[in-house]
Amino acid sequence: MNTSTLEAVSRRKPLEDPLAYLPCSSILHVKRGEAIYDRDKARAGIYMVIAGKVKVSRMTDEGRPVLIDIYQADEFFGEASLINLSPGVDSAVALETTSVMTWASEDIERLAAERPKLAIALVQLVVGRSVDFARRVESLAFDSIEHRLAHALVRFSERFGAPAENGFAEMMALTHESLSQYVATSREVITHHMNRFRSMGFLTYSRRHTSVNAAAIKDWMKQEPVALKNAA
Amino acid sequence: MNTSTLEAVSRRKPLEDPLAYLPCSSILHVKRGEAIYDRDKARAGIYMVIAGKVKVSRMTDEGRPVLIDIYQADEFFGEASLINLSPGVDSAVALETTSVMTWASEDIERLAAERPKLAIALVQLVVGRSVDFARRVESLAFDSIEHRLAHALVRFSERFGAPAENGFAEMMALTHESLSQYVATSREVITHHMNRFRSMGFLTYSRRHTSVNAAAIKDWMKQEPVALKNAA
Repeated sequence: MNTSTLEAVSRRKPLEDPLAYLPCSSILHVKRGEAIYDRDKARAGIYMVIAGKVKVSRMTDEGRPVLIDIYQADEFFGEASLINLSPGVDSAVALETTSVMTWASEDIERLAAERPKLAIALVQLVVGRSVDFARRVESLAFDSIEHRLAHALVRFSERFGAPAENGFAEMMALTHESLSQYVATSREVITHHMNRFRSMGFLTYSRRHTSVNAAAIKDWMKQEPVALKNAA
Repeated sequence: MNTSTLEAVSRRKPLEDPLAYLPCSSILHVKRGEAIYDRDKARAGIYMVIAGKVKVSRMTDEGRPVLIDIYQADEFFGEASLINLSPGVDSAVALETTSVMTWASEDIERLAAERPKLAIALVQLVVGRSVDFARRVESLAFDSIEHRLAHALVRFSERFGAPAENGFAEMMALTHESLSQYVATSREVITHHMNRFRSMGFLTYSRRHTSVNAAAIKDWMKQEPVALKNAA
């Protein structure tokens, strides 16, 4: 996969925004590291981040966590509650001091019946996520770990980064553990590649932030032949 | 991943069925091997299979196809048209003589506004697909190729198989090429593992059908330690 040629989106009209059709609801404040839902704490419905960041993971049957995504202000998570999946399979944890707004799935269904554009907006939101998942399946299927990490860094910096000097975008610290759960490898392997990327000038990081030069990473991905993982 | 302990679904009430809220629409008949949409033929909207089977794939930027899924009667595909993705990234091809019903995405939006339960049904459908994708991301991340193939055979036989003798379920022929595009490996590797599974009594196959003993495969997966792929 080549992020520089991500499929073009030709929109006949702008997508609907669920936020435009949802009334205010109760707000939950959570501290850094605190679970919003997990094995022991049931999902209350659909959530939207008001402020802060939330990490959503799924646990495999062998007990290995897979990072689904990180969500920021105005983004939704917990949509699986709309199909009444039993709790415990996925969890949402605040990465920093976070506030979220919650709507029970019964309320969402009632509201969608009253405001059909809300339903369309939700359909579009979830379709967008499955397109994202399909890309990730491709990347896991065919990219080397190094390329998967490069894709992850570009994607997170485009989602969360604020422009900084010299083409870098600065975002919250991405721990090597979170990256390993996204890229699906061990933390040690992530640390090895992150050190290499740092020495190549693609990123700088500390406990407080991660800065990524996405353009430089994309150039490198274009030049570097993609390892034919799993091909033989 | 262990298919025998797939996450339990505790439903407060049955999911909505989009079919119950969609009026009849135009029907398209396609021959085996013919494209319903692809790079050269635009998606007409959302499709539902009336009879036959349809294989939906995505092409990676390097030109390698990934099989997204195979759809059968009463199942929907082409939902990406709801977010107006440009054509060419995914394609749908009839695996046998097939009839599909089509609704333009503008019509779906209008219908959903008139029949809110249709919108809820579509949301639930798409949420279900993204949960499926999340499981596949897990499997690609952590399972060996052999286990990924075993999961794929169990899943396809549960979706398409009709009960046959001795615990086998018989379905359409799954080509090694399709399996390689689902499991994400080469056809040669699939052939190697299929021969091995056949000699272990897990399956029989010909040009016309594939028969799978899903219970035997699940037992074997339980005993066989999962290779810690990508773990070091």
